Amino acid sequence: MAMENLKQFLVVLSAAAAIGFIAIIFVLRWVLHFQDGLAWDGGLAEFNWHPVLTVTGFIFLQGIAIIVYRLPWTWQCSKLMMKFIHAGLNLLAFVFAVIAMVAVFDFHNAANIPNMYSLHSWLGLTAVILYGLQLVLGVGMYLIPVTPVSWRATFMPFHVYGGLLLFASIIAVALMGITEKLIFGLKDPKYKDSPPEAIFVNVLGVLLVLFGSLILWIATRTSWKRPRDQILHSLHTNGGGGDNTKVASALSQLQDGSDAEATGDVRKRSNKADEQAN
Amino acid sequence: MAMENLKQFLVVLSAAAAIGFIAIIFVLRWVLHFQDGLAWDGGLAEFNWHPVLTVTGFIFLQGIAIIVYRLPWTWQCSKLMMKFIHAGLNLLAFVFAVIAMVAVFDFHNAANIPNMYSLHSWLGLTAVILYGLQLVLGVGMYLIPVTPVSWRATFMPFHVYGGLLLFASIIAVALMGITEKLIFGLKDPKYKDSPPEAIFVNVLGVLLVLFGSLILWIATRTSWKRPRDQILHSLHTNGGGGDNTKVASALSQLQDGSDAEATGDVRKRSNKADEQAN
Repeated sequence: MAMENLKQFLVVLSAAAAIGFIAIIFVLRWVLHFQDGLAWDGGLAEFNWHPVLTVTGFIFLQGIAIIVYRLPWTWQCSKLMMKFIHAGLNLLAFVFAVIAMVAVFDFHNAANIPNMYSLHSWLGLTAVILYGLQLVLGVGMYLIPVTPVSWRATFMPFHVYGGLLLFASIIAVALMGITEKLIFGLKDPKYKDSPPEAIFVNVLGVLLVLFGSLILWIATRTSWKRPRDQILHSLHTNGGGGDNTKVASALSQLQDGSDAEATGDVRKRSNKADEQAN
Repeated sequence: MAMENLKQFLVVLSAAAAIGFIAIIFVLRWVLHFQDGLAWDGGLAEFNWHPVLTVTGFIFLQGIAIIVYRLPWTWQCSKLMMKFIHAGLNLLAFVFAVIAMVAVFDFHNAANIPNMYSLHSWLGLTAVILYGLQLVLGVGMYLIPVTPVSWRATFMPFHVYGGLLLFASIIAVALMGITEKLIFGLKDPKYKDSPPEAIFVNVLGVLLVLFGSLILWIATRTSWKRPRDQILHSLHTNGGGGDNTKVASALSQLQDGSDAEATGDVRKRSNKADEQAN
């Protein structure tokens, strides 16, 4: 990565990390200062685990998982190790999301509030299920050594698009959750009277949008991707299943791409290599 | 576009168009059947213009505006004409959004409900303002002939990313609006009792997410982009300001890209050409 490019990357990354941390502080202050704190008692303090685990796990950890391949200081590490970190962070985010859901179901059941009636709950549960599916398919495709390289390449656009779409959708679902909670939770003064809690949690919503926007920007800049020689290496070490023709063909395409890059300023990529680089 | 690729494009496009139409029918049935209909009287029937104009204009028309360059039957048209259609549809969507906002402010003021207290209103107003800014910058950059090609190329990643981010954000804001309206609007039975209106409008929310997902999929497939010879042509006809060196360099890069494409199956692109192709 050229120096200028690296500097820009670090600025955007620092902004994303800072905003992510501030969002976590905001959600903690929301439940600890404005609300009843955290507990596992079937009451509002159990409900409070829902926003805390969503913001820290399902949004922040997932955001980091998405851009983990972009961190230049990891480009010395093997691609396989980075895949494990990517999968591990996503698994952790998934666990946080599941506990966050259990907290709400528990709270609803204890308070005799119906489950799964709101658009927030429909889209939220769908997102958690699809996220679990994405995790299983991701491990099956990219961490099990015998999966043919051709399958990996075919599935990659869906893996990348599905991952980014889920990330954006989960932030949208969180914004709906904030809306619901502020309407139901604020009684006197109400949400429409803009008490300090309303303003504070609205700002949390804005922070989540900013965090999401920066993560998606980082994830979609092609010039910030992990360089290709590492991919070559990972194909050599991971792709030697029973699909050697495909491997050879993929390798020749990748090398072709690298040659092109060496010849001038203009960065050329084959689509296959692009997809592999995620 | 190869035949197989074209077929896949048409399937996804048809699905997006069908889901978009169904969403429009749903929002109309919501306000005409479940709610008080449409009027401009300061009451709930005026408020109802808000979801109708948002779904038809700010979401559906904007979605079409985003993918208008992808329609293969427009590839015979000049790029300039397609730019005018892209800008015109976005302008129309913007007008719809502004009227949608006026309807809410009018309704709030008549009913003595405070304005701009909710996260929905904060993010919605921000989205409308940024959308207006994007429109002004887009016209300034890509429709005014004197803007240097180098500026156009530099701004293109921001134009594309900003456009897609705004589109996704506006759908998220609509989902928050649905949540608010169902909580405030449904009294007996309430939202949590899942009356038919609640289920019906939840489904509208799901349709909006599906529409958005398909539009974003279409917009981000590189192999569905308008072919490059058209871009060459548009650079020749639009880019002849006072920036001829840049034009020549851009042209040579683009031709370079085309040559690469002609030599084999693997599609190669320069990043600049990619961005230009939007």
